Amino acid sequence: MGELKHALAETAEATAQVLDAWLAPVPGAVGRVVEAMRYGALGGGKRLRPFLVVQSAALFDVPRQQALHAAAALEMVHCYSLIHDDLPAMDDSDLRRGRPTVHREFDDATAVLAGDGLLTEAFAVLADPRTHPDAAVRVELVAALAAASGSAGMVGGQMIDLSPERSGLDLDGITHLQRLKTGALITFACEAGASLGRAPADARAALAAYAGELGLAFQIVDDLLDAAGSAEELGKPTGQDAALGKATFVGQLGLEGARVKAEALIETARTRLDLFGEKADFLRETATFVLQRRS
Amino acid sequence: MGELKHALAETAEATAQVLDAWLAPVPGAVGRVVEAMRYGALGGGKRLRPFLVVQSAALFDVPRQQALHAAAALEMVHCYSLIHDDLPAMDDSDLRRGRPTVHREFDDATAVLAGDGLLTEAFAVLADPRTHPDAAVRVELVAALAAASGSAGMVGGQMIDLSPERSGLDLDGITHLQRLKTGALITFACEAGASLGRAPADARAALAAYAGELGLAFQIVDDLLDAAGSAEELGKPTGQDAALGKATFVGQLGLEGARVKAEALIETARTRLDLFGEKADFLRETATFVLQRRS
Repeated sequence: MGELKHALAETAEATAQVLDAWLAPVPGAVGRVVEAMRYGALGGGKRLRPFLVVQSAALFDVPRQQALHAAAALEMVHCYSLIHDDLPAMDDSDLRRGRPTVHREFDDATAVLAGDGLLTEAFAVLADPRTHPDAAVRVELVAALAAASGSAGMVGGQMIDLSPERSGLDLDGITHLQRLKTGALITFACEAGASLGRAPADARAALAAYAGELGLAFQIVDDLLDAAGSAEELGKPTGQDAALGKATFVGQLGLEGARVKAEALIETARTRLDLFGEKADFLRETATFVLQRRS
Repeated sequence: MGELKHALAETAEATAQVLDAWLAPVPGAVGRVVEAMRYGALGGGKRLRPFLVVQSAALFDVPRQQALHAAAALEMVHCYSLIHDDLPAMDDSDLRRGRPTVHREFDDATAVLAGDGLLTEAFAVLADPRTHPDAAVRVELVAALAAASGSAGMVGGQMIDLSPERSGLDLDGITHLQRLKTGALITFACEAGASLGRAPADARAALAAYAGELGLAFQIVDDLLDAAGSAEELGKPTGQDAALGKATFVGQLGLEGARVKAEALIETARTRLDLFGEKADFLRETATFVLQRRS
């Protein structure tokens, strides 16, 4: 696990460098929204999605800088969604990763614009030749990221999360919600590596299956942490789902049932990677890491 | 002018059809955000930007359906910006095009998500082969739209508009603000036609110059209407800029000076189109129309 943590930290740092370069500070009044975009995108986090992009791309010997650009684009979308999610009109959160949220550090209007700016910039990064020399690959990434993050993906999941139906969802409903709200971006992360590497169909299918199971397990562990973790470890308040009356995997399956389910998913996810041999060792360890994480 | 109005109405209808097809209603809880996206994108408007795309593309004999797809993508970005602009955290507007704004018809959270969804979908449309068979052209459009609508374009302009410096801007400052906030998308509209038609450099430069002058004149006329128009004609309250203490072209140049400036810009814009001959007649008339509009 020590080697994985080192690799994760290294990718986090390399992704931050690409983000830092793309989101260069500018003078004048415009500078404020760029500053807010930087605050929202460069504030740490595990950078799990970038790591999945980089590791999936490595399976197909994609140049590292290309993978890091796709990773940065994906992270911009992830961070924009957190900024908008935290707004008073949405979850109304004051804390994120142990720091004030963007609208608390700046103001609501700037947070709306910073989110919009990051979402827009993500597509600028994917369209840039540094992401891939072949325009066909770049446009495939644009289409895939738009599909994963729009109303048929992440935005749709956020809508379900805010709906009156949310509290009464059954296991199928929560699973569907997870697939849209967080699963779609995790799947994009792994598929982006395959796109960059022009991977054959069987490799793409294996990565998509791995990503689906990993993403679901990730959410179940999130629910377990929210139910049982400490706010200090997590960097944000816990017990929120129960307080809000939201149906969760833990509510549906119980603490033990949820834990067993997550373990089974991770076991299956790991076997999806058999065809990649040792090259997929970090992806296998990532699955185990997701299961064991405490924050 | 009658023929122009007919052509404008026809393009508005054709653009609405593409938007309607792309934003097809979906069942379940996700349906609410799609419904809000439809409400925000299909609620009328002059569809000036789509018309500019279609007419610029026609100069190079681009198939109409391709131009309409690029037009729909651009309109999605325009409409998302109106939805977010109207939010309580931003301009806090209750009315848009004579109807309740999206957050008044739905709620704040749904309006945030609907804007996010439309922005995302715009890039999905541009990445689609129906917009152009050549991936290199599609990715060029993606890059151009992202540049026009991000922090170096529209979002940056919105940030300036909300800044404390806003009220004290001089003529250069207001012109810069306009170029970012509204000019960038109008320029994209004309350049998209050139991209779709793989136009030569001189044609692109002529269209970009036309678009720059048209966009600036458009904003000056907006200021004139806000200062002197009636709320009934405009479909939204007037006199808002003065009430908010915002520096405007009318404030800087006076009613007469602003009118003269707009007329000169439109005259120049029309001559930019000389190299296109009769094919650019509608674009010339559009410039005159922008000058004479009452709403």
